[in-house]
Formats: sequence, structure tokens, C-alpha cells
Amino acid sequence: MTSNDGATLDFRSDTVTRPDETMRRAMASAEVADNVIDVDPTIRALEERAAAVLGMPAALWTPSGTMANLIALSVHLQRGDRFLAPKGAHVLNNELGTAAWLAGGMPEPLEHDAGPGRPTPETLSAAIGARGGPYYALRTTLLCLENTHNAAGGAVTPPHEHAQLLSTARQAGLRVHLDGARIWHAATALGLPPAALTVGVDTVSACFSKGLGAPVGSVVAGSVNFVERARRMRQMLGGGVRQGGILAAAGLVALDRIADLEQDHEKSRRLAAGLVELGWEVNAPETNILLARVADISVTLESLRALGVLALPMAGKVRFITHRDLSLDDIDEALRRIKAGGHP
Amino acid sequence: MTSNDGATLDFRSDTVTRPDETMRRAMASAEVADNVIDVDPTIRALEERAAAVLGMPAALWTPSGTMANLIALSVHLQRGDRFLAPKGAHVLNNELGTAAWLAGGMPEPLEHDAGPGRPTPETLSAAIGARGGPYYALRTTLLCLENTHNAAGGAVTPPHEHAQLLSTARQAGLRVHLDGARIWHAATALGLPPAALTVGVDTVSACFSKGLGAPVGSVVAGSVNFVERARRMRQMLGGGVRQGGILAAAGLVALDRIADLEQDHEKSRRLAAGLVELGWEVNAPETNILLARVADISVTLESLRALGVLALPMAGKVRFITHRDLSLDDIDEALRRIKAGGHP
Amino acid sequence: MTSNDGATLDFRSDTVTRPDETMRRAMASAEVADNVIDVDPTIRALEERAAAVLGMPAALWTPSGTMANLIALSVHLQRGDRFLAPKGAHVLNNELGTAAWLAGGMPEPLEHDAGPGRPTPETLSAAIGARGGPYYALRTTLLCLENTHNAAGGAVTPPHEHAQLLSTARQAGLRVHLDGARIWHAATALGLPPAALTVGVDTVSACFSKGLGAPVGSVVAGSVNFVERARRMRQMLGGGVRQGGILAAAGLVALDRIADLEQDHEKSRRLAAGLVELGWEVNAPETNILLARVADISVTLESLRALGVLALPMAGKVRFITHRDLSLDDIDEALRRIKAGGHP
Amino acid sequence: MTSNDGATLDFRSDTVTRPDETMRRAMASAEVADNVIDVDPTIRALEERAAAVLGMPAALWTPSGTMANLIALSVHLQRGDRFLAPKGAHVLNNELGTAAWLAGGMPEPLEHDAGPGRPTPETLSAAIGARGGPYYALRTTLLCLENTHNAAGGAVTPPHEHAQLLSTARQAGLRVHLDGARIWHAATALGLPPAALTVGVDTVSACFSKGLGAPVGSVVAGSVNFVERARRMRQMLGGGVRQGGILAAAGLVALDRIADLEQDHEKSRRLAAGLVELGWEVNAPETNILLARVADISVTLESLRALGVLALPMAGKVRFITHRDLSLDDIDEALRRIKAGGHP
Repeated sequence: MTSNDGATLDFRSDTVTRPDETMRRAMASAEVADNVIDVDPTIRALEERAAAVLGMPAALWTPSGTMANLIALSVHLQRGDRFLAPKGAHVLNNELGTAAWLAGGMPEPLEHDAGPGRPTPETLSAAIGARGGPYYALRTTLLCLENTHNAAGGAVTPPHEHAQLLSTARQAGLRVHLDGARIWHAATALGLPPAALTVGVDTVSACFSKGLGAPVGSVVAGSVNFVERARRMRQMLGGGVRQGGILAAAGLVALDRIADLEQDHEKSRRLAAGLVELGWEVNAPETNILLARVADISVTLESLRALGVLALPMAGKVRFITHRDLSLDDIDEALRRIKAGGHP
Repeated sequence: MTSNDGATLDFRSDTVTRPDETMRRAMASAEVADNVIDVDPTIRALEERAAAVLGMPAALWTPSGTMANLIALSVHLQRGDRFLAPKGAHVLNNELGTAAWLAGGMPEPLEHDAGPGRPTPETLSAAIGARGGPYYALRTTLLCLENTHNAAGGAVTPPHEHAQLLSTARQAGLRVHLDGARIWHAATALGLPPAALTVGVDTVSACFSKGLGAPVGSVVAGSVNFVERARRMRQMLGGGVRQGGILAAAGLVALDRIADLEQDHEKSRRLAAGLVELGWEVNAPETNILLARVADISVTLESLRALGVLALPMAGKVRFITHRDLSLDDIDEALRRIKAGGHP
Repeated sequence: MTSNDGATLDFRSDTVTRPDETMRRAMASAEVADNVIDVDPTIRALEERAAAVLGMPAALWTPSGTMANLIALSVHLQRGDRFLAPKGAHVLNNELGTAAWLAGGMPEPLEHDAGPGRPTPETLSAAIGARGGPYYALRTTLLCLENTHNAAGGAVTPPHEHAQLLSTARQAGLRVHLDGARIWHAATALGLPPAALTVGVDTVSACFSKGLGAPVGSVVAGSVNFVERARRMRQMLGGGVRQGGILAAAGLVALDRIADLEQDHEKSRRLAAGLVELGWEVNAPETNILLARVADISVTLESLRALGVLALPMAGKVRFITHRDLSLDDIDEALRRIKAGGHP
Repeated sequence: MTSNDGATLDFRSDTVTRPDETMRRAMASAEVADNVIDVDPTIRALEERAAAVLGMPAALWTPSGTMANLIALSVHLQRGDRFLAPKGAHVLNNELGTAAWLAGGMPEPLEHDAGPGRPTPETLSAAIGARGGPYYALRTTLLCLENTHNAAGGAVTPPHEHAQLLSTARQAGLRVHLDGARIWHAATALGLPPAALTVGVDTVSACFSKGLGAPVGSVVAGSVNFVERARRMRQMLGGGVRQGGILAAAGLVALDRIADLEQDHEKSRRLAAGLVELGWEVNAPETNILLARVADISVTLESLRALGVLALPMAGKVRFITHRDLSLDDIDEALRRIKAGGHP
């Protein structure tokens, strides 16, 4: 989508991007095979490269980030287990409860007392509670982190806080899963490679379709043994596909584009500055997500829609996400429309 | 258990009571039948009486309060449903996650901003969120209340607050389950019949083994249609028993003893006063549960045990529960021992 | 129930028996304690004695046989596991599908090609199939036997056939659970102790309420480690009860009565002989269960009911079960009524 | 894959086909959108066309046939429901037990007494059993058919038998799901449109990746209301993808190729004839699946592999599937190799 006066400007998500010609050509020429009974070479290539980028021993392609998280939690959790996750985490609020009813865990949300999206080690420690409780007690066995944290406004957890949380979790015997759907954005914001943000985790999920422009595809990474169990779970859920190399080819192109995300972050900062100038109350965006506090979410979303500016509700606010199919000019155009529209 | 100098004083729960002679005689002479393929007359009598006491159309006997709650939640919840419950609710923390993995709901805890165990209608309303979300969103369909609220120190929700919460939940289309394991204590504290505390709920659970002295047995009550579905779920879970009238007979005796609970409340007030005098930090008990904030729970529990005083950890505090097998003299004896022991 | 001309004769199940005075006195005087947070001494005594009688290291009391089986299967099975059971097994047909949806197994029924209720080792072996299949294949991990086999007419599996099946299952790496709800009857028919029928199994369930006269109560037995896991699962399902010693006391009396079952077997043989004389087509009862093939089950059951003779449908036939609350005179009376009624 | 002397000939499945240039071009130029928060136009086009071809009101794209079946069963089944399916059905044996543990049904296999893959109405009727059983009984609520039936050798159920089974199921109040992964092959064999084979069913699944050459993609079709519920279940399972139009474009091309399947059937008949000539015992293939009875499956598969001929085990036999990436010449070449290899 290129912007022009009349075009709709779609800030609903960075998942709305469409594959460009390079990506389409890569898909059209991908070498493929039946990835259920064989190994699709392009899926394998993507899994190997993603594992390397994420700093993990092995990785498994999945059709969605929702499935990537679901597989990880299903492998980690047993009935009677409790898992901890920062309030508003995607696995708590945006995956239709599968962490509970399907993966089998009882969730406990953690306050963001270290900053947006980030619990302190003390909060984590208190939530874990005493070890070795009686047979009739829940057992806290898993910590789910999310970096960037979507509902906290694309908030980044820096490596030293990550390390403290990991250390606390590890000492208590917990496993750790990182929902890294937008780990690319966190890494970009920090000027670090993604692998710097996965230190010590057991598993991490990441999405090629969020910001990086791939049409479909995510990955869940962990130990070789984990990936073996994850492959079986993927098949159970119906995520085992045949010549999926078509999609994996787009994932390989997507991984070349992590560096581009700095531009998306610039766009969100520009949007934030413009909105503040117009009197909006917004967070200072750390990555490509902007949350605006408004009087009435439905009214604001409807007004924006009438101006050709699309956004979504998130965590009691209006969420704008910038992405590669919106240019800096599109940001300016959106601000012009909002100013002209007299909002908020 | 009668107290004497050397006897252990057991404050761990009001479930530790032993049936007295009256109750044992009632059990020994109960008329019974196979309650799976027929109807056990004593179970029926208890179910009918419990339904009346609770102000509900029908009731179903269960072997435990855990099963009573589990049945209710299993009937109410579908996959993709979210349910709300005050922080620390028994269904959240003390039933091994079955509300999630077995009943199928994704929980969301509510702050106690109206008082111990009690969310405000505003908090409830905010947690329910907007109705009619997209197909990929959790649907909030159930509110679980708990009266008295165990982890909040036996806290009572009074009828006018109950009514406000019910009204808010109803307007949003939610169903309401009340975990009334100790509804007897709430009613006693308020000087109201239990039925005054179930107004508007769809279902309520209650326990004959908590405070009332029955060895085994609980009940879940609701509409006739609910009880039909609950009966099937009880059978699935293995709670369908044969000549259960033996136990139901104890439940019938227990229901004669609600008025006695005022004595247990007096005991907890006396214990609280004594502990405060000794420098302890405790809540002002509304019913028969007392929570003490201590520096180190394990150390305190161990020291108390050495004095022949048993308590349990609950919600990061030390919990004392008074009951019919502890006399007022036992309370004084416990205080003497604690004073002599030099605690805390 | 003692028979007289007008009394209803209840052949529906051996679960309809009512506790006699001895049993009621034992219950009334049972020593008890809170079996969730402590150990009820009478439950412990029953568990220890049942483990010994069943020849297993440890045992766990449950409120029903349904729960005993459900716990065992839940501990044994993982998602993606297949289990095998003789056609018509209780876990397949009579436990509301919990072996599938709750315990998580995909069942595969085995033909009774060795005799009623009994598959041959060859049939078992073929059903197990090849080991080490691909990651996307079901894994056969459990064999569920049933002795006596209810739907096959109380059929007994003798020790040498049991041993062959166990050997086949073991060599293939399967675990084995024995549904021994009526293992007492099998043992009695064979003139062996129950422990002779559990050789090599991982777990066995048994019911005190089937034939032995206890009002409520079953047991699941296995290794110490199994029982630890089973205790946690029992709590999840709501089967953790407080002063359950009341019921366990009846179980202890019941275990004294295994030898009485020979009389129940004699009653079923007398009933069978009488019915054959009247032109009925029935199995030669091995224990206390008789199956009659009739033209129209509903019609026959209704006609019998009009005569004051109660039976139930089972496996496409009419099932009569003899038990301690029916005397030999009652059998004769039932035959007189059926003859007078002109059936079938 | 084109055949030559050295090339591997892959008869393992018709899912091993690779998209050709036409299909790749269609994917490369597909119009797409985010199909989670919007509607991808190419997915919509495919869903509408597939619904029409299948004679159903509406359809939903899924990433796999496994997920299509799982969604249908999850929508249809409740805990405590039993479903019926012909022995060896894919949902019973090849989907990792999800019909049981995830969709929640207790399966009951039906004998193939009307012919390969086909139960008689009498068998179906007997399995359904009496209606209106007691609350503690399983309720038979769903019939799952499979046409063609994979494990029965690609067996076709003709319309008049389908109609009889539907009529029997409907009269008993059952819903009916048709696993039509290869409904295209059944239609081709019968010279009928696929919609002629879905008469009366509630839901049907079908795969674009089986025989028709699409790399990824299936569909589940039913009422508009069903599809709404199915969309939510798809999202739960992680099957909600973004710009899936890339794959749907291949599905649209695939639907143009149903007529080609007659050639695949000819290939399987030629393969069967050749194998019979070599002394093999095979079924007379009705579609593109051939099952060979051999002395030792592993040995035969290994010997074939050494000759560059790949097959898979299925239902205790060796399965060959013909498809568009194998030519008639490839069939002859395979037969030459097998003859030269001296098998079986």
C-alpha cells in the first residue's frame, strides 16, 4: 500500500503488510517437499537460520504465533501447574484461553512494577511463592515473558532486567518461555542481536509476519528435544503442512529485514510527537506500537475510521502500529487528517 | 477433641472437626439407596433442604467443595470463555487449576478495592470490558464470587455490595457462581439467612464439612436444568456414589448447627485480641478466620507446632481457623502457649 | 431387603446392597481425621489392607470405581497415546468418555476371541502394532483389562491367560491397568486370592461397593510413586474428602466378606438354570452376572418390572446381578414370578 | 518430479506433489489481506468456490485436513458424547487422538460389513443403540464418514449407501461429518460432482493438497453458523493466518484439476495389474490408493526403497498412492524395478 490522499492508512497491526515482489519471487521459486513425511528444504533452512538468529539449538516453523506459543506452553505445562506472565500478556488475553484449557496451566498475572511490561524480580519472586508445597497445591513451573510487550505499548525489556528475571525464575526451578512475536523490534530498539534477548530461556517464539512483511509464518525454538516434542504437538493441532517451503521462503526474506525496523520505530516516534502536539495522551513509543488514552475508545476508533485512519483497541487504549507498508509521509498524512478531523 | 494441657490445638482448618455422637448416630441409622441408578432418600432429603436453605430451586450433593465448584464451572464455561474472580479466590489458587484445564476458563483476578475479598462494581465493570468483541477475542461470561472469602481472612460480602456486583454482572450478560463453602459463616456474621446472600446467582456451592462438623459432603445448587447437567458432570468426575445417604445424614445434622457458628466467631475475635496484645499483626476477624502477618511464615508455623498449636500458611500469612472442636478455653490455652513461647 | 411375596427383587446391580448392622456399627465408631491435610487412620488402614489383598505396594481410597479408573488412566496416558481394552470394557462404554476427553487416550477395542471378555495374545499383539512409529503416529502405551468383565457377563480371565496378555503387553513396552471392580468375584470363582490376578499389572482398581456391601468406596492401587501422583489427581477431581474414615470402615468390613461371594455365584447359577428351564437364552454365569438375550429389551425389562423383578440393559442384553441382599429364596421367587408372568 | 532411470518414484502419498508453474504463478500474484482481522480476498474466493463445489452453504480455509476435521469434531462434540466412524478412519487412527482428548468424543469403530470402508445401516443402527438413556450413559451424537476411505484402500462409498447411512443417522438424531480429504477422488470414480456425495451431512472437510497438487490447504464446510464457530476454533488452534491468500490461490488452481484425477486412478489400476502379474496380493483399486498384503511390511518397504520405490505402511499393509507427479511411464518403471528386484 502506498499512501495517497484518499488511501486508507492502516495502523491496526504490522500484520497487515503485504509481501512485496522480492518476497513473492522467493515464494514462487522456493524448493519444497512434503514436510509431514519428509523435510521441506526451505522450511529446514528457515528453521536453522531462525534458530541461529534467536540463539537457540533448534527451531520449528508454525503457521502462526498463536500456535507457536500454544505448542511451547503445551509442552511445558502439566495439569496442576501454574504459570506466571506479565499482566496483559498475549498468552493471557489474546489467545482465547488456550494456555489454560488446552495447554493446561493456571495463569497468574504479574504487575508491571519495573516499567511497562516488566515485573521486578521481587514481584516475580513473591508470585512464585514457597517451593515444595503440599500435594494439593498448584505448582508454579513456568514464567512467560513477552518482549516487546504488546499491550504495554511495544515495551522493551532490556537484557539486564531479563537476566534478573531469568535468574530468579531459574533459582526457583521454573522454566521460561519468551513470547518474542516482536523480538525483532526489541532487538532493534536496543541495538542488539535477537539472540542477546533470549539468554537462558527454554523456548522462544517469534513471528515473520509481524513487521518483517512475511504473509504467514512463525517459529518456536528451544532444545533439540523440545523441538521433537513440539513437532508432535504441531501435528496434533493441525499445523503440520506439506510444501510449506512456499511460506518459509518469505520467512527467509523477512529475516533479512530486521534492520529496516528502525524506520518503523522512527515512524511511531513521529506519530507520537504529532499526536502529543494535537493534545493526545500517548506513551513514548519504544518500538513500533503507540497507545493513546482516549475518553471513549469506540468513538475515537469510529472517528478515525471516518478519516481513513484505522487503529484497534488494546488494553483499554487505542493502539497504532507502524510498519513497512506505511511511509513517513503516511504518518504525516495521518496526522493531517486527525488534525483536520478535530480529534480527540 | 477436648483441650487439655498437653493436647494439640488444631487451628489449621474448620475441616478437621470430627463428627460427634449425634451425627454418628444419624449416619448409622440413615435410610439409604443406590444414588447412581436410583435416588438415595437421605441424599434427596439433604439436597431438598440445602436448596431451601440456600434459596435455590434445586441442589446436588457432592463429595467435596472442590467438586461442587468444578461442576458449576464446567457447566458454565466454554472454551474461549474468561471468568472473573476476586484475587486469591479458592477456584483460582486452591483447586489445582481445574477451573482452567478442566472447566475450560481463562481466569482474570479482580482487585479487592471495596474491602477484603470484595471488588467494586467499577473494577468488575472494567474487567468485563466491552461486549461483542471480534471472533478472536476471549468472551467474559462468568463471575465467581466467594463469601466468605477465605484468603482475605474469612471476609464477608454484605448483601448491598453483593447486589451491586450481581447487577453489574447481569447487565453485562454474565452468569454468576458463588463459592459459598462458608456461606454459613457469612450469614451468621450478618445475622441473615444464607438465602439472603445468594440473591440473583445462577449457582452456589456450600460445604457441610466446613464449620458445621460433617465429615464429608458439599452441595452445588442452581436451577433444575443446571442440576440435571451437574448430575451428569458429577458422574463423569467420579462423584456419583451409591448409598451416600450415610454421609448426607451428617449433612442434615450439620444444617441444624448454623446458629452455633456465632461461637466460632467469638473464638476468633478472642484469639485476635489476645494475639494483638502479644504484639501480633492480625486482621479484625469478621468470621472464623484470622490471618497474621509474620516475618517468616515457615519459622512461625514451626514454632507454633512446637507449642502444640497448628496453623497453615494462606495468602502469604499465617492462618488460624476456629471451629466447634476448639473451645474458648482452648483459645486461652493457645494464647498462653504462644505467650510462653515468646512469639512472634 | 428380605424377600417376601410383594417385595421388589432388585437384580439391577450388586451396588444396590445396603450396609448391614455390623457395617453400620463399624462406620459409627470409626476413628477419623481430615484426610486432605492429614491422614485419616481408618482410610490408611483400609488402603494398607487393600494394597495387601491386591498384592500391590500401595493403594488410594476413592469415592467410586469410576474415579479409581479415571485416576489410573489420567496418570498413565499422555496426549497422543492409544490404549487398548476388551470390547465393552467399562472404561470404554460406561464412564462417559472420560478415558478419552479427560485422561487423554484414544481407545481401541479388542475382540473377545479367547472367550468372553478375553482377547488372545495374538489379537493384543496385532492391535499394539509396530513400535517406534513416526512422530505423527499414535503411540500405544496402555492395556486396560477388566476382570471380571461386566459386559461379557461377569466373565473371568484365568491367571494363565492373564499372564500371556501381560507378557505380550510388557514386551511391547505397554503399561497395564486392571479394572478390578469385581476382582473379588473373579478370585472367588477361581478359588484364588485376588493378588493372584494382579500379577504384573501397574495399577488395579477395585470396589468395596460391588458385591461386598459397602455403601461407598473404591481403591486404586499401584506403586508408591503412582499413589503419590494419584493422590494429587484425586484432589483435582474433587475426590479428596475429609473424615472419610466413616466410609473406609465399611470397606474394611467388606474385605472380610469376599468368601461370601461364592453364595452369590450359586444364586446366579440357580437363576440361570431356572431361566433356561423357562426357555430363556442366557450365558452360563461364571460369577454373579447373568446376561439374557431377548427379542426386545425394553419390553422384557418392563414386563419384569411389572412382576417386581428389576434388571438393567447391558451390551444389548438383559442383565441380572445377584448379590448379598438377595437370598436363594429370592431367586426362586423371581423364577416363580417370571414363570407366572409367561416370559419371555 | 519427472521419472528417469535413477529417480526415486514416490508412492508414499499424493501429498508429496510439488506445485507446478501455473500454481506458483497464481500464488505469486495472489491478491491478499490480513485474514485474521480482515478478510483475505483470495481466501474468501476459495472458500466460496469450495462451498459451492462441495454443495455446502459456507466454508472455512484451514492449513491442514487434520485441522479441518479437528475443528468440525470440536464444534460437534460435547464431553460425554460418543461418535461413530468406520474402522481405520483417519480421525480414529491418524490424527493423534485429538478427536478424543481435544474434541472430547469417545469413539466407537464400525465394521466394514457393506464393503471396504463402508458399514451397513444395520451396523450403524446397532452401534447407535437405544436413545434416551439415563444421565450416566454416553450419548451417541455424531457419525463420521470418510469418502474415499484411506485405510480401506481409497474405497468409495456410493451415493445410495451414503443416503442410507445418512437416513439412519438422521433418524437417530445424530449429526454427520464427512471426512472428504479425497472426496475429489470419490467423485471422479463415480463420475459425479463432489456435491453429490455430501447430501445431508452437517459438515465436510476436503484437502487441496491431496491429489490436486496444492502445497498447503484444506477446507471445512457447513452451515453459516457452523463456519462462524469454526472460525473461532481455528483461531484457538493457531490456524488463523494473515495473508493466506498466497496458499488459497493454489487451492483455486487445484479445484480446476479434479478432472485430472481419472488419470491417477488409471495409474493405480495399471500398478495393481502389474503387481498381480508379479504375484502380489493387492486390492482392486477404486481410486488412487493400492494396498498390498505382504509377509513382512518392514522388509518389503526396505526392499522397495533400495529399488528407488517409496511406499508407506497403512492398516497392516503396504500402501501405494498414485498422483500427478508420477506418470504412467513411472508406473511401468516401478514395475520393472520390482520385477528386477525379485519381490515380493
